[in-house]
Amino acid sequence: MNRSMIRYLLSKLLLIEAGLLIVPLVVAAIYREPAKVFVSIGATMAILLAFGLLGSFHKPKDFHIYAKEGVLIVALCWILWSFFGALPFVFSGQIPNIIDAFFEVSSGFTTTGATILDDVGVLSHSLLFWRSFTHLIGGMGVLVFALAIMDNNKNSHLEVMKAEVPGPVFGKVVSKLKNTAQILYFLYLGLFFLFVVLYFLAGMPLYDSFVIAMGTAGTGGFTVFNDGIAHYNSSLITYLVSIGVLVFGVNFNLYYFLMIRKFKAFFKDEELRTYITIVLVSSVLIAYNVLHLYANVAKSFEISFFQVSNIITTTGFGYGTTEKWPLFSQFILLMLMVIGGSAGSTAGGLKVIRCLTLWRIAKNQVLSTLSPNRVLTLHVNDTILDKDTQHQILKYFTIYSFITIGLLFVVSLDNNNFMTVVSAVFSCFNNIGPMIGTGQTFSIFSPISKLLLSLAMIAGRLEIYPMILLFLPKTWSKR
Amino acid sequence: MNRSMIRYLLSKLLLIEAGLLIVPLVVAAIYREPAKVFVSIGATMAILLAFGLLGSFHKPKDFHIYAKEGVLIVALCWILWSFFGALPFVFSGQIPNIIDAFFEVSSGFTTTGATILDDVGVLSHSLLFWRSFTHLIGGMGVLVFALAIMDNNKNSHLEVMKAEVPGPVFGKVVSKLKNTAQILYFLYLGLFFLFVVLYFLAGMPLYDSFVIAMGTAGTGGFTVFNDGIAHYNSSLITYLVSIGVLVFGVNFNLYYFLMIRKFKAFFKDEELRTYITIVLVSSVLIAYNVLHLYANVAKSFEISFFQVSNIITTTGFGYGTTEKWPLFSQFILLMLMVIGGSAGSTAGGLKVIRCLTLWRIAKNQVLSTLSPNRVLTLHVNDTILDKDTQHQILKYFTIYSFITIGLLFVVSLDNNNFMTVVSAVFSCFNNIGPMIGTGQTFSIFSPISKLLLSLAMIAGRLEIYPMILLFLPKTWSKR
Repeated sequence: MNRSMIRYLLSKLLLIEAGLLIVPLVVAAIYREPAKVFVSIGATMAILLAFGLLGSFHKPKDFHIYAKEGVLIVALCWILWSFFGALPFVFSGQIPNIIDAFFEVSSGFTTTGATILDDVGVLSHSLLFWRSFTHLIGGMGVLVFALAIMDNNKNSHLEVMKAEVPGPVFGKVVSKLKNTAQILYFLYLGLFFLFVVLYFLAGMPLYDSFVIAMGTAGTGGFTVFNDGIAHYNSSLITYLVSIGVLVFGVNFNLYYFLMIRKFKAFFKDEELRTYITIVLVSSVLIAYNVLHLYANVAKSFEISFFQVSNIITTTGFGYGTTEKWPLFSQFILLMLMVIGGSAGSTAGGLKVIRCLTLWRIAKNQVLSTLSPNRVLTLHVNDTILDKDTQHQILKYFTIYSFITIGLLFVVSLDNNNFMTVVSAVFSCFNNIGPMIGTGQTFSIFSPISKLLLSLAMIAGRLEIYPMILLFLPKTWSKR
Repeated sequence: MNRSMIRYLLSKLLLIEAGLLIVPLVVAAIYREPAKVFVSIGATMAILLAFGLLGSFHKPKDFHIYAKEGVLIVALCWILWSFFGALPFVFSGQIPNIIDAFFEVSSGFTTTGATILDDVGVLSHSLLFWRSFTHLIGGMGVLVFALAIMDNNKNSHLEVMKAEVPGPVFGKVVSKLKNTAQILYFLYLGLFFLFVVLYFLAGMPLYDSFVIAMGTAGTGGFTVFNDGIAHYNSSLITYLVSIGVLVFGVNFNLYYFLMIRKFKAFFKDEELRTYITIVLVSSVLIAYNVLHLYANVAKSFEISFFQVSNIITTTGFGYGTTEKWPLFSQFILLMLMVIGGSAGSTAGGLKVIRCLTLWRIAKNQVLSTLSPNRVLTLHVNDTILDKDTQHQILKYFTIYSFITIGLLFVVSLDNNNFMTVVSAVFSCFNNIGPMIGTGQTFSIFSPISKLLLSLAMIAGRLEIYPMILLFLPKTWSKR
């Protein structure tokens, strides 16, 4: 284990976070916020600089790192950035409790969008902007971002990258890592700015356009007002946001196909087709099921489509509550939480491709009972998925289930509403944000649950293994 | 596909059911019940005899059957016995609706014990006895029973047997099928009579002792009164029933070890140890969690131990409701529903051994992230579990999850209480009986849900595959 390199890289990453804090500082200046805000952000920057410079002063003798160090750095980075990123909220007194602030910022960096704030009005423009800015950064992955601007040619980062891009990615965009990062970065920010403009043109104030677009790009979900997107009271904006989040729930590799004009490859992708099918079927089912709660079919579909796209892409922008929805519709949303978006997107959850594969494995298994001796192959996107990959996915699903059950046990000690507890755990572990069937925020939970759910968000964001590795005593044993 | 043999064997099985109906007829005679009851049971016997004789009149040319026919016969037998076994209730008007009666009797034969009767007082002694008698028959498996008394030497039944004995059985008791069936039969009925006597000595009326012992032996759960075991208001009986169901939740192969005085092998069994550990830990956790609801620690533990043993063994005898229990305790019960009893017992659920294996697979997978190149073996009871078996269990878990989710979708259309819907589905699919957190019975559900849940009970009882095979169009296609 190359501990010096872990220390060195993490320190560098802290310096980057210090740099990122310039953004809320600028926002504070624009809105002429009180000195306390400047001091809070400034102090945090100073602390980050101190730790960062101290830790990166001594260069490691050996720059080589392996997979293990790679994933540990990713996991630790997410925790550290969340912790230090929470300090401005604590210092300024806008979120005085450190656990609450840590929850809020890990929720930001993991692009979950779960909040402990019953009233977002307590946040100043700058810190509300910072909160959503963490979505933008977290969205494409702290380290893809970091890698791209660090301009480090050593390919020691390869394994970090692997841990970063979520899901089983079947198609490789480009062979060279740095190019990949740059192209993803370009696509991501390009689409982000596109939606800033679109939201602005649709009638949002410029500040809001930025905040909501950051939540869209990271599939995060933090908004500007307590009533979320409903605040704008515009069907155009509702549909635009719904489509926006769906765009960011697609595998970014596919957009590269569009860039190089391989339209067929784009539309033939099985994950994309499944994703779109699930969105449409769920929207129609829910729209029908909740029809009696809304003025007409159009409104019912608009809201259903909004909720479905926001949940499956694990964004979770708010739009009223689903408290009065029939259980059938709430249950569809719960399942969408588990499914999540596409692999290689900013979304969380199990990922569509994994669910599709699990479904096909189950189907093959059923068919094999008919003729036990026939060997059934499993195809995804015209490629045969070998047994090993299938088993990896089966095991992932099992571990995912165990962790979900474990989280449910702990959180059930806090609250007696089954749907609240289940959706809180699903929401955090799959990086969605809101709970289902309640208008409450995560402020209702105990500090222990909040802390555990924060770690669950990070675990979910990193597809579990890096976080387990981090907490395994064996990982750190010298031998 | 040997259709004639399926027809022939099923017809023979209908004749057996006609014979079994003599038992409630005797009970009706003892209690001098009205003529209507005799006519109802008699008419059912006549119908069974007619179908049975008609169908078994022509002997098949070819007596040889394969695995496929075997599992189809098992699945069909369960459905047919439930249907015909429901007729006395319909004819007598005690459960006038055929779907309700079908639900009740499949619940009996599958040893689930879920009821649609808000008041069991509507049943006469004979039919209440018949209802619980189906537990006793279903308990050890209709076909192990049938095989043992059919005295058929053709080993064409081997595959039926395989489908019958639930769970991944790692130790083979005896090599010859007929002997196995006889030993199981002997053990099962021996323990059954033991508990009839024990219950009687503990203060139950003789009639009740039989009914409750049948529910115990089959890990079914039908009782004599609406308030279940609470009716007897005796801690002795409560503990006796708790221990009784635990006894029947143990792998019967292990009792054979006791019979041949291999005590070490008995107590070293990992499934048994896990099973006992889960029961004790859950009981203590719940007893502590619900302490405020009961008079003292002793009472709290008594009730907790009763509920835990009744749920994990998938018996589900009633004892008050768990309505006021904190979610944490209710959630433990939900998870016990999924775990279920031991393989090779009369219990349902995933089975302890499968859960234990899934846990070890997950653990190995986590450890393999530490050192990806090391090959980790998986041991259960000092035997290495090969990859294929591991994958079968992983796939079983996946299919189990998919079916559970599908059932939840349908049943959620009926009811808006999440815990009610989840526990109703878990309860039926894992053959437990009661719902959690409600005092209601299954009468609250629509006919469609009741029918689906009846089929879910049979699917759960037969470990899913036979039922899927039955409903697969490909199974029946001629080619």
